[in-house]
Amino acid sequence: MTIQTAIDALATLLGDGLTRSKSDLALHGRSESHFAECPPDAVAYPTDTAQVAEIVKVCAAHACPIVAWGTGTSLEGHSLALSGGIVLDMTRMNSLLAVNAEDMDCVVQPGLTRVALNTQLRDTGLFFPVDPGADASLGGMASTRASGTTAVRYGTMRDNVMALEVVLADGRIIRTGSRARKSSAGYDLTALFVGAEGTLGIITELTLRLHGQPQATAAAVCAFPTVADAVAAVTATIQMGVPMARIELLDAASISAVTAYAGMDLPTQPHLLLEFHGSDAAVAADAETVKEIATDFGAAGFDWATRTEDRNRLWKMRHDAHYAIMASKPGHRAIVTDVCVPVSKLAEAIAETQAEIAASPITGPILGHVGDGNFHAILLIEPASDADRIAAEELSHRMALRAIRLGGTCTGEHGIGVGKRGYMEAEHGEGWDVMGQIKAALDPTRIMNPGKLVRD
Amino acid sequence: MTIQTAIDALATLLGDGLTRSKSDLALHGRSESHFAECPPDAVAYPTDTAQVAEIVKVCAAHACPIVAWGTGTSLEGHSLALSGGIVLDMTRMNSLLAVNAEDMDCVVQPGLTRVALNTQLRDTGLFFPVDPGADASLGGMASTRASGTTAVRYGTMRDNVMALEVVLADGRIIRTGSRARKSSAGYDLTALFVGAEGTLGIITELTLRLHGQPQATAAAVCAFPTVADAVAAVTATIQMGVPMARIELLDAASISAVTAYAGMDLPTQPHLLLEFHGSDAAVAADAETVKEIATDFGAAGFDWATRTEDRNRLWKMRHDAHYAIMASKPGHRAIVTDVCVPVSKLAEAIAETQAEIAASPITGPILGHVGDGNFHAILLIEPASDADRIAAEELSHRMALRAIRLGGTCTGEHGIGVGKRGYMEAEHGEGWDVMGQIKAALDPTRIMNPGKLVRD
Repeated sequence: MTIQTAIDALATLLGDGLTRSKSDLALHGRSESHFAECPPDAVAYPTDTAQVAEIVKVCAAHACPIVAWGTGTSLEGHSLALSGGIVLDMTRMNSLLAVNAEDMDCVVQPGLTRVALNTQLRDTGLFFPVDPGADASLGGMASTRASGTTAVRYGTMRDNVMALEVVLADGRIIRTGSRARKSSAGYDLTALFVGAEGTLGIITELTLRLHGQPQATAAAVCAFPTVADAVAAVTATIQMGVPMARIELLDAASISAVTAYAGMDLPTQPHLLLEFHGSDAAVAADAETVKEIATDFGAAGFDWATRTEDRNRLWKMRHDAHYAIMASKPGHRAIVTDVCVPVSKLAEAIAETQAEIAASPITGPILGHVGDGNFHAILLIEPASDADRIAAEELSHRMALRAIRLGGTCTGEHGIGVGKRGYMEAEHGEGWDVMGQIKAALDPTRIMNPGKLVRD
Repeated sequence: MTIQTAIDALATLLGDGLTRSKSDLALHGRSESHFAECPPDAVAYPTDTAQVAEIVKVCAAHACPIVAWGTGTSLEGHSLALSGGIVLDMTRMNSLLAVNAEDMDCVVQPGLTRVALNTQLRDTGLFFPVDPGADASLGGMASTRASGTTAVRYGTMRDNVMALEVVLADGRIIRTGSRARKSSAGYDLTALFVGAEGTLGIITELTLRLHGQPQATAAAVCAFPTVADAVAAVTATIQMGVPMARIELLDAASISAVTAYAGMDLPTQPHLLLEFHGSDAAVAADAETVKEIATDFGAAGFDWATRTEDRNRLWKMRHDAHYAIMASKPGHRAIVTDVCVPVSKLAEAIAETQAEIAASPITGPILGHVGDGNFHAILLIEPASDADRIAAEELSHRMALRAIRLGGTCTGEHGIGVGKRGYMEAEHGEGWDVMGQIKAALDPTRIMNPGKLVRD
């Protein structure tokens, strides 16, 4: 019952599908954020579901931890092998298995990335809308309940995963959900595994909801006097029922960084970036409605991007915001925060966060998916500075507690992993114990991504 | 440890909030469908969450079954006290606790009905869209993951319940979810309790997503040569991305019954009933698009209902369909079926069902929420006829197995209760065992609605 005996057995089972090379262990010991490196004892590269089940059975027999790995782009240390054991790298299970165009769904393996999926869907007239920024794997996106810029229109992974195949901690293979668009047949196991961060089982197949590529797309950018004005415009837009495809807020500090990076010329004020999807007529009508609302709230400098290249330039600016903000302070590292509050509390939450950042020794531009009440501060710290690190951690801590106090959540889309586990009790109370009971029922020996999400 | 000792303790605790009158027991022993009456030993009428928790603690101490009751309109025997014990009638917990207009959500007690909620919301510009036909309680609708005619646009209870307060089987009170529009903070307990049919806990409060009352509404009805043509028109409409508010199919047999009942004049052919919500311009454009599509598939007799009274008449016809079909064969009882398949399989599923009904001794008009692939056959049987009952059960059985075989589900919106439990293994395989493991973890003494959903 040791990790080593498990790895010996796996080496026999997998041959060169198991590696212990230093470079591979190091690569799978990193995360995209500020957590210390934590290499696993071995990396397995399964090629099919049956092999995943065999690997899990070996690990179960030897109490060897298993951590699933997609692209390593998660932000709360989800894929770190904190207790050693094996990382299950799913990149060889990256096929698009079926496209059911008439039903607007598809079946994929978990290692397929969202960009690769959309490339393969291009000629079908359909697309998969969830866009967290990174070109993450679809299994990883499901496991962290990811979302991003388009959630205001198309929902999160919660809304776009219809069915799953999952290998449980004892090696059983189950299927959850179906290709029917709705069902009342028992507990919603699909929703249970979406967002479970690999702590209950390994996702080996996903059925995803697709959407029609919009007939027309338009985008726009405009400046507001204050963040509160921009948020008020967003609230009014959503209450009018305008089906926005994207509504992104960049505060003045973010605008300063992205315009310097992209060589654009925008005033150093809070901005909204907007996108509309629909028929030609609907897009034109919606855009006009939103322009009127925004103008009522003091918006200026309305700039339309109806040509594809202008639109791409605008969204490239948004997608590059993280790098632009990093580039604004060379040599610094980022601690990325992620809170979500009811939209009525958004202006207050951002204003208090901005005031605390201004009173701290560090800078922290803010941007967010404001249609959902979700925003991030990118807290920039000098790696050698303990004062910076302590200040950033304190800011992040206060943001999370404020979000919970305002009726929201400590994470809108990044997940818990190891970084946000300290807030689970504050956010869920005894509900966190219920999560622990479910974990204990389905993974009694705690081999599935130990140290994450639930209490130890 | 007997039901009687529990009831004695509850009588002391609740005073006249506990009844054992014959009429009350009989009233709470009935269901809307064909299941035999099954009165509980007592009926409790809690007035707040704390009292529900006290009741559950007493029941837990004495292993006394608890069955939650809303309006008694569920269709698979969900509220029958199969093992005796108490029925928890939630009708005194029927308040609208808060409306957060800016956030487009509200907080309600479980005994509030959907019609009562919408009446109270009328002046807010908001509404709660889920419409299963019956004026069910919102707690019951959440527990059965109900949906209905508007799910194609607004989703089911899964999509419209944001947060819950739940009393667990040991009396702990937990809160799941939050008022934030999205979250990645741990297991989705809200989704676990939505559709759990009272087998994991008692819902004592719900936070619901609201939607803006549409600026404009239009409805239409049209006839198709065949069901397959109607379904093809629906598929094309959804693929075009037209945001239909309702798309209902009535087959020729249903049309015959509803027109006779409502004194309307429609040809005895399959019909679609359509509704559009949006801005004036969007509704006009969408309606024009759909008319073109429908005409391509042979639709005729397009009749628009833009005036409120015409629209109400149309939807009253649809809502009364059940009664109209009952009235078409006086003295008969109905066995209502409920399957959901991928839309690409819908025409096949309906055609095979119609053929089997035609070859049987009974009649069974078909109608459905075809945008979701969900349909019902209303199987009419003579109460005294064993041959009718056996034929109806066989038809229902074949419908459920066919739906599962076609990649769908044995219930789109009615739930499992006791009536569909026999299909759980066929639909979920070992996933049903996983549901049992979750049940065992959260309700080890099995006091929560025993005999429903999970294996005994």
